[in-house]
Amino acid sequence: MRDVAIIGVGAHPAGKFEDKRLKDLGREAVWKALGDAGVGAADVQVAYFGNSLGGLLTGQEGIRGQVVLQESGLGGIPVVNVENACASGATALRGAWLEVASGNADMALAVGAEKMFVGDTAKSISALAADSEIELSQMGMQFSAAYAIHPKTNLKGKMKEYGWTPADFAKVVVKNSHNGSLNPYAQHRKPLAEEDVLTSRMIADPLTLYMCSSIADGAAAAIVCPAEDAKRYTDKPPVRIGAIALTSGQYRLAGDTKPDMVAMTAGLAYEAAGVGPEDVDIAEVHDAMAPAELLIYERLGFCGPGEGPRLIDDGVTTIGGRRPVNPSGGLVARGHPVGATGLLQVAELVWQLRGEAGDRQAGNNPKVALTHNQGGLLLGMDSAACTVSILLR
Amino acid sequence: MRDVAIIGVGAHPAGKFEDKRLKDLGREAVWKALGDAGVGAADVQVAYFGNSLGGLLTGQEGIRGQVVLQESGLGGIPVVNVENACASGATALRGAWLEVASGNADMALAVGAEKMFVGDTAKSISALAADSEIELSQMGMQFSAAYAIHPKTNLKGKMKEYGWTPADFAKVVVKNSHNGSLNPYAQHRKPLAEEDVLTSRMIADPLTLYMCSSIADGAAAAIVCPAEDAKRYTDKPPVRIGAIALTSGQYRLAGDTKPDMVAMTAGLAYEAAGVGPEDVDIAEVHDAMAPAELLIYERLGFCGPGEGPRLIDDGVTTIGGRRPVNPSGGLVARGHPVGATGLLQVAELVWQLRGEAGDRQAGNNPKVALTHNQGGLLLGMDSAACTVSILLR
Repeated sequence: MRDVAIIGVGAHPAGKFEDKRLKDLGREAVWKALGDAGVGAADVQVAYFGNSLGGLLTGQEGIRGQVVLQESGLGGIPVVNVENACASGATALRGAWLEVASGNADMALAVGAEKMFVGDTAKSISALAADSEIELSQMGMQFSAAYAIHPKTNLKGKMKEYGWTPADFAKVVVKNSHNGSLNPYAQHRKPLAEEDVLTSRMIADPLTLYMCSSIADGAAAAIVCPAEDAKRYTDKPPVRIGAIALTSGQYRLAGDTKPDMVAMTAGLAYEAAGVGPEDVDIAEVHDAMAPAELLIYERLGFCGPGEGPRLIDDGVTTIGGRRPVNPSGGLVARGHPVGATGLLQVAELVWQLRGEAGDRQAGNNPKVALTHNQGGLLLGMDSAACTVSILLR
Repeated sequence: MRDVAIIGVGAHPAGKFEDKRLKDLGREAVWKALGDAGVGAADVQVAYFGNSLGGLLTGQEGIRGQVVLQESGLGGIPVVNVENACASGATALRGAWLEVASGNADMALAVGAEKMFVGDTAKSISALAADSEIELSQMGMQFSAAYAIHPKTNLKGKMKEYGWTPADFAKVVVKNSHNGSLNPYAQHRKPLAEEDVLTSRMIADPLTLYMCSSIADGAAAAIVCPAEDAKRYTDKPPVRIGAIALTSGQYRLAGDTKPDMVAMTAGLAYEAAGVGPEDVDIAEVHDAMAPAELLIYERLGFCGPGEGPRLIDDGVTTIGGRRPVNPSGGLVARGHPVGATGLLQVAELVWQLRGEAGDRQAGNNPKVALTHNQGGLLLGMDSAACTVSILLR
């Protein structure tokens, strides 16, 4: 398989854009990515389009990518519409990577776009991906409640085991909201203090409002080509894809000793890229709810069990730290337009690896970056889809 | 890229199965494919899942494949959910093919499944893929009406140009309903006479009821591995994938001289597989409406402009003919469970190439097979997605 590089990225900010359609969000991200890569629409040979909620929210099913890409001037090329709930963006990048890695195409486009503000926001929330037959219909659960009480998440159990408090979760939000305040692509740009987070409305104990990502519109895109061709198109430092690992959830029985899903996926990605957790300079992770970031730290091998809050206390994962995590603001501050999130993470890390992230540029001259993008909820199991990608400068 | 072979296929019949869920349909197809290939669930390293209407019809969006594959005993492996309207099945096979061709996986599964009988069948019909903003919302069109009047299809114009009559369209249905009557997987198993077709209810002039494919439940699956490994798993003749070409539609302006979309896609497939139309021994084509089959003949290079009806009159495309087309019964008789259709076509051709098609076995000892699977409607343009695949024994 060929080495593949990302030569261009583009994004539409996350937020509420009532006058914009999915087509408008997607087109802006695509055109920015083309401009960033210094290539034209005619150079792109195949496109992967990630969107999760278009069918349920807008009735646009089946050919979402074609509808958006026609309006972006990319008609005619093969389009593969992909979905993996909140991991749809990373799944789109994986498809584009495989096209180029295999030699089937010499330039591929990955797009993630989501339009969630469609009038009835309750519909947007209940559309979030789970087994519609079990969690959604029979239990009437919504995502934040599910996260709080889900047996696999076992949040209360972890709090007891590790001695974590809501204040520990608030630390994640304080860090990420600070990062988001520096990010022109972020949905929430107000830096929050611990007290703001703890006194915000209780959503599902122990999760308060500011600990939860909110619904958003947004889009992002990336253009990939063989690493050896990158210099032909752009003078910017190419960012090589070291690995994109994807796994699906499994049923878990009591006493199950299979490794945690995030740890397992990260292990596959580290092995494929030939790096270890100690090599990761910067990461964007899937903090759909703030406590997740603390658990993800340990599952990615950034710290030992229960040590997440200390990483924040010690400043390790702040923008100026040794290993910044969620410099974009993460899902809780940058925003979580579902199908776009994985590619918003990638765009952020490409900017960081190139030193183009402006006020939120990591101070540690990052060379190895990691994204973790996860999605879908299945009862008694892991998430439906988990991806960990390694990007290298 | 590596040569890839299909070593197993399986299907759930098309039809109305009110007591079965998408999970049940998919599981049956997957298990039959595993059995046919002589491999276990643990041998499969990655799965592509094609479904088009689950989000709109059942509310199951985002993680459809995981939900089905968990119940099939294939939890844990990477799942990529793909959509391309009526071409979702072929798009799933393309993904599985690329995984193995690239060397990223040594065994991949493609599944197509659709559950259309969900109570409100009007909903099923209006969910068929088009630009929801234009065709569906603003024009209130449904698919058969759109096919009849669509400027790109230009059916009335073709009738005038070629001197085709409704009786010519009925010939397609007579042939395909005969084939379907021999196929245990077919939805409609009653052989129809020309008069039955012409006197059936008018749906959208000139299309009568029996000229239109109807809604259906159904599923199909295929297992692929490197061609050189095929003998390790099964004694059945492996079927090599010669090519899977995919294109998307483009806007067309008056006087546009770009080649027709089907012809263009077929040209790409012929070139990649190193065969020409004259080499094709058998084909399954996308006769969503019966007249389409006649137009597809000429676009695939099976005959000259307007000569389609003569191919049927001369018996060329009947099961006993020189080049059988739609031996399964095609979409009008075998049935058209949207996301499953492309893989139902593939299953039929694998059986035909192996000589396992029973009463409907082609008499010409086929070695080169072609599928044409197309989907999605965009105003003033081609279809959203068109695929042509070549399978070789």
